Amino acid sequence: MSWDQVWIDVNVATMSPSVSAPYGAITDAAVAVEKGRIAWIGLRSELPEFDVLSTPVYRGKGAWITPGLIDAHTHLVFAGNRANEFELRLQGASYEEIARSGGGIISTVKACREASEGELFELGRKRLNALAKEGVTTVEIKSGYGLETETELKLLRVARELGKHHHVDVKTTFLGAHAIPPEYKDNAETYVDLVIDEMLPAVIEENLADAADVFCENIAFSVEQTERVLTAAKDAGLDIKLHAEQLSNLGGSAMAARLGAKSVDHIEYLDETGVKALSQSGTCATLLPGAFYFLRETQMPPIELLRKHKVPMVLASDYNPGSSPLCSSLLMLNMGCTLFRLTPEEALAGMTRNAAKALGVEDNVGVLEVGMQADFCLWDITTPAQLSYSYGVGVCLEVVKSGQLVHQ
Amino acid sequence: MSWDQVWIDVNVATMSPSVSAPYGAITDAAVAVEKGRIAWIGLRSELPEFDVLSTPVYRGKGAWITPGLIDAHTHLVFAGNRANEFELRLQGASYEEIARSGGGIISTVKACREASEGELFELGRKRLNALAKEGVTTVEIKSGYGLETETELKLLRVARELGKHHHVDVKTTFLGAHAIPPEYKDNAETYVDLVIDEMLPAVIEENLADAADVFCENIAFSVEQTERVLTAAKDAGLDIKLHAEQLSNLGGSAMAARLGAKSVDHIEYLDETGVKALSQSGTCATLLPGAFYFLRETQMPPIELLRKHKVPMVLASDYNPGSSPLCSSLLMLNMGCTLFRLTPEEALAGMTRNAAKALGVEDNVGVLEVGMQADFCLWDITTPAQLSYSYGVGVCLEVVKSGQLVHQ
Ligand SMILES: [Zn+2]
Ligand SMILES: [Zn+2]
Repeated sequence: MSWDQVWIDVNVATMSPSVSAPYGAITDAAVAVEKGRIAWIGLRSELPEFDVLSTPVYRGKGAWITPGLIDAHTHLVFAGNRANEFELRLQGASYEEIARSGGGIISTVKACREASEGELFELGRKRLNALAKEGVTTVEIKSGYGLETETELKLLRVARELGKHHHVDVKTTFLGAHAIPPEYKDNAETYVDLVIDEMLPAVIEENLADAADVFCENIAFSVEQTERVLTAAKDAGLDIKLHAEQLSNLGGSAMAARLGAKSVDHIEYLDETGVKALSQSGTCATLLPGAFYFLRETQMPPIELLRKHKVPMVLASDYNPGSSPLCSSLLMLNMGCTLFRLTPEEALAGMTRNAAKALGVEDNVGVLEVGMQADFCLWDITTPAQLSYSYGVGVCLEVVKSGQLVHQ
Repeated sequence: MSWDQVWIDVNVATMSPSVSAPYGAITDAAVAVEKGRIAWIGLRSELPEFDVLSTPVYRGKGAWITPGLIDAHTHLVFAGNRANEFELRLQGASYEEIARSGGGIISTVKACREASEGELFELGRKRLNALAKEGVTTVEIKSGYGLETETELKLLRVARELGKHHHVDVKTTFLGAHAIPPEYKDNAETYVDLVIDEMLPAVIEENLADAADVFCENIAFSVEQTERVLTAAKDAGLDIKLHAEQLSNLGGSAMAARLGAKSVDHIEYLDETGVKALSQSGTCATLLPGAFYFLRETQMPPIELLRKHKVPMVLASDYNPGSSPLCSSLLMLNMGCTLFRLTPEEALAGMTRNAAKALGVEDNVGVLEVGMQADFCLWDITTPAQLSYSYGVGVCLEVVKSGQLVHQ
């Protein structure tokens, strides 16, 4: 055997369904990497002989390896921040006063329209660095703070550039239908036309997006409007997904499932009919505990029903300036368990195996099996549950991305 | 003027009551440091002339300076972790099953009794590093996982050693009366005797503690038992404080206030009588949102009453393996605002000015004024509220401790 590197003295949470132990765990394991992929994985005692003189061998001192983390729902390219609005609200200001002071999503839209690509790139890079330090190797980034063609394209271009210039893989999502911009306040249909007839073709033309998303809610787009956008995106060859059932149960999730959506996200108000629809279509349920926490929501997503109907549960940061200004994937593991009562194994699957599925990259990443991309982390923990249980003390010892040790 | 260093191009949240703006803010400020203390602070336009050739001048590029953060309530010296118990509970195990599997505080006590001072020091050092990277310059550390003389002394020795070998200042608190150990299950009074007659004198003899603390609760020590311990500690010259009113309103806070306690901590169930007692004695109210979050409590501490009676509010991590495994002070700023509805200014005061008061070090740190120790942080933020509003992207640019730039 000639490999590029071998890891020993490690325990591996493969997260592979083909390994029957919890977490797909192999204790006292070995992992061999060749050409950026997993070439061998199994019990160390069964590791084939290899040329120890020419192969770098890394010793994990009993640490745990997991797949690189995947944050499958973020809005991390944006300018400005909403600290003033946060402060005003806590000082007792009314929503009207906050709106008058320029708060809300429109303040972020304004900042994004004014920001240069360079500024947005630098802001995004810092945030990607923060996630990467916690073991994230793949991230999804949405547009949606432009609400006009030029700025939507700009945000997606920045997201694409981040993917090219950062070791973290970036999947991009066009979210032109994130909110109804004030210019179209009484004319949402016309804005939907703009999204479909002008923005989407331009996005496709520049190959800026891997998927399309819509915020389907009574304060945003109706199920019918959402279906128009998703159908057009699907016809244009994009994956589709949805912000749905966050504040009410409109039925957007079932519609999106029917169209073959990769995921429906938030879904606090999803009912059993909706859950069954997801189950039938193989659509993932993406849970966003950061927004639940930050908005102090009390309606729990239907975790038991999702378990019952075997819907893959994904856990993501939803990092954004309005409803989840928490740029941390590890914190989401803790919040997923603490607030949504996921088990630590469900939480970790939600940021590895199932997150890969939600992004359509499950043939490449999300589990550690022979042939998969060698994206993994070495953690200073004694049990995988520790990743979800505690937070704050740096436990990410090493990140390997496509077989390369990342220095950060 | 000859100074050791000067900071310009900065805005300063002095947190000093003598500066009338919110946060005691001075925009476009300058700060001069000499012999580890603030030698001058004010508007840059009023900065006296100084020898620019021999004085290092740091330019903050418009960043904000705040006092170094103070985490006034932690249990950060402990061994083991409770990830298994966390996982069992989320898998649906009953409390009995968890107890049988060796969970609960007793598992931490067991691990601490077995650990060497060197092991505990190394664990504590990592945690202190994590806090320090977020701008913490002073931290309180409690014992309480020994519940026998030898181990209580060991934990306090480690805390003292951390203070000597880490740039973060450490205040130590003797918490022998943290829980009734199983050996004394039906004999709490005898354990209280042991705390008072054996542990406390030994702690005093080695000068291992700055303060004493008791967990006053129906599942721990009664108000009468608590008073016995606190009185003995006070007579021995220690500051006193209390874990109180977390699960019920026993009246421990009012008793402790009468004895002149520096702080009462948790206090979700404190009533107006108790709040008035704090107000009269100048006792601080220490709020611990990490435990509130992790235990999914719903009883809010009496924030409005604390405001009404002008009780200084402190915000701390309560970092511990059982009820708040969150080793992050910045996250507590966010949780203090999000969960307890503190304003960002109240939150920051709770980790600076008021935290200093709770630790009895308010003459030295917690505000930025001439003569105070030069403990401060430079933050990559545009408004102080940003420290509470968002979390995750590293914003701590520099930490200055006693006038020394800390490289971390
Ligand atoms: Zn979102
Ligand atoms: Zn505590």
